[in-house]
Amino acid sequence: MSTDPRLFIDAPLSAGAAIPLSREDAHYLINVMRRVEGDSVRIFNGRDGEWAAQISHASKRAAALTVGQQTRLQHGVPDLWLLFAPVKRQKTDLIIEKATELGVAAICPVTTARTQSDRIKFDRFQAIAKEAAEQTERLDLPEIRDIERLDRVLDAWPDERVIIFCDESGDEAGEAWGGARGRGQPMASALAAFGAPPAAILIGPEGGFSPVERDRLRALDHVIPVTLGPRILRAETAAIAALTIWQSACGDWR
Amino acid sequence: MSTDPRLFIDAPLSAGAAIPLSREDAHYLINVMRRVEGDSVRIFNGRDGEWAAQISHASKRAAALTVGQQTRLQHGVPDLWLLFAPVKRQKTDLIIEKATELGVAAICPVTTARTQSDRIKFDRFQAIAKEAAEQTERLDLPEIRDIERLDRVLDAWPDERVIIFCDESGDEAGEAWGGARGRGQPMASALAAFGAPPAAILIGPEGGFSPVERDRLRALDHVIPVTLGPRILRAETAAIAALTIWQSACGDWR
Repeated sequence: MSTDPRLFIDAPLSAGAAIPLSREDAHYLINVMRRVEGDSVRIFNGRDGEWAAQISHASKRAAALTVGQQTRLQHGVPDLWLLFAPVKRQKTDLIIEKATELGVAAICPVTTARTQSDRIKFDRFQAIAKEAAEQTERLDLPEIRDIERLDRVLDAWPDERVIIFCDESGDEAGEAWGGARGRGQPMASALAAFGAPPAAILIGPEGGFSPVERDRLRALDHVIPVTLGPRILRAETAAIAALTIWQSACGDWR
Repeated sequence: MSTDPRLFIDAPLSAGAAIPLSREDAHYLINVMRRVEGDSVRIFNGRDGEWAAQISHASKRAAALTVGQQTRLQHGVPDLWLLFAPVKRQKTDLIIEKATELGVAAICPVTTARTQSDRIKFDRFQAIAKEAAEQTERLDLPEIRDIERLDRVLDAWPDERVIIFCDESGDEAGEAWGGARGRGQPMASALAAFGAPPAAILIGPEGGFSPVERDRLRALDHVIPVTLGPRILRAETAAIAALTIWQSACGDWR
């Protein structure tokens, strides 16, 4: 496996093209990775596959590449979205990073009745997704949507896309343990009935969904309530586990 | 779902018992969670199920509980071990936390030819596992073993326990992408043939396994090489994903 650094470049790529790097990419390549003029890197832009490139200029603050040959053809990730309610910063960052590694196509932050934060740091999310995509050999970045209220997202929902509804919060009626918590079925069983339609995974905030939200979700035809085992998972763990099970059952891990 | 704080207590539990808390638990309950005398907590010790308890004494530096009634019978987690090569501190911490949430029975750090660190902070691992078990509604803590060399672990391996070998590193021969990287089969397919024998998941260091290690592992009858999709996952992501797939296919998420 090549150990050449790998960079996402937001520019058209073709043999011989000269690519000036952003200050951040130049810093990473020259000061962090200690690369010098003439060294090889791999680059991708989300459209044109992966290309070999050489560092044609390097100084402390700037660098440029010359594009060589294409090394991989473009291909994308399965059509899976992640809808999640932002949690604390470190955990939200982890969700963005791991969702990118696990091959999600779109990341859609939503606010719910109990969401702790309704602001997102879009630039920060982009930077985390870029770095994760570079390290995980993806050929594209996930699309990161602006934050929106869950009820509005549901109002405008495309019918053909199923929502896999992970309700990790238990239930106010005290059904959380030993009772009828399992109103959804185990996620892997629920997915066994499906081929691979467009899908979205929905993960709630730490405080769970409100009764109104839960009732609405459970009443929708395209919503599949699922459980993720007998323990209560934190929001970020539920997101990672659900993405893994979907990729394994319906996605490109098969 | 009860919002009473939940504590692991290393003492026998029975109705009426008086339990002095450790300084750390007292600090958490009184100063972090702002609980006072008379408030309810839930406690477990890994053997006697879960019990309701009341704070019978609380000061800035000390607290004690009186045990009430048992609220859940003891039951454990499936017989799954995680073998992993310690990576950077933050990622190793994440592996311990998430493995506990995902219901692993034993955590076994191993050193490999390319392991970055051969020391582990046993007390730190214990504290992380305790907190994760408290929050995730487990009734026990995972067993945390001392670090050992992978070759010695394999020398003493019990034949009846399968090793699910996650080789995320690609291959030095350049097979990583587009080539015959998939020498293992997708993990979910590999597990479909199994019931639920005792199992262990093996995750390598960031630099992958050495050719000698890989050859030895692949030659063993009880080793099942698997892949985790077409992207290259970081070590901590591979650990979380593999634990999820095992629980989903062979464990208590079914």
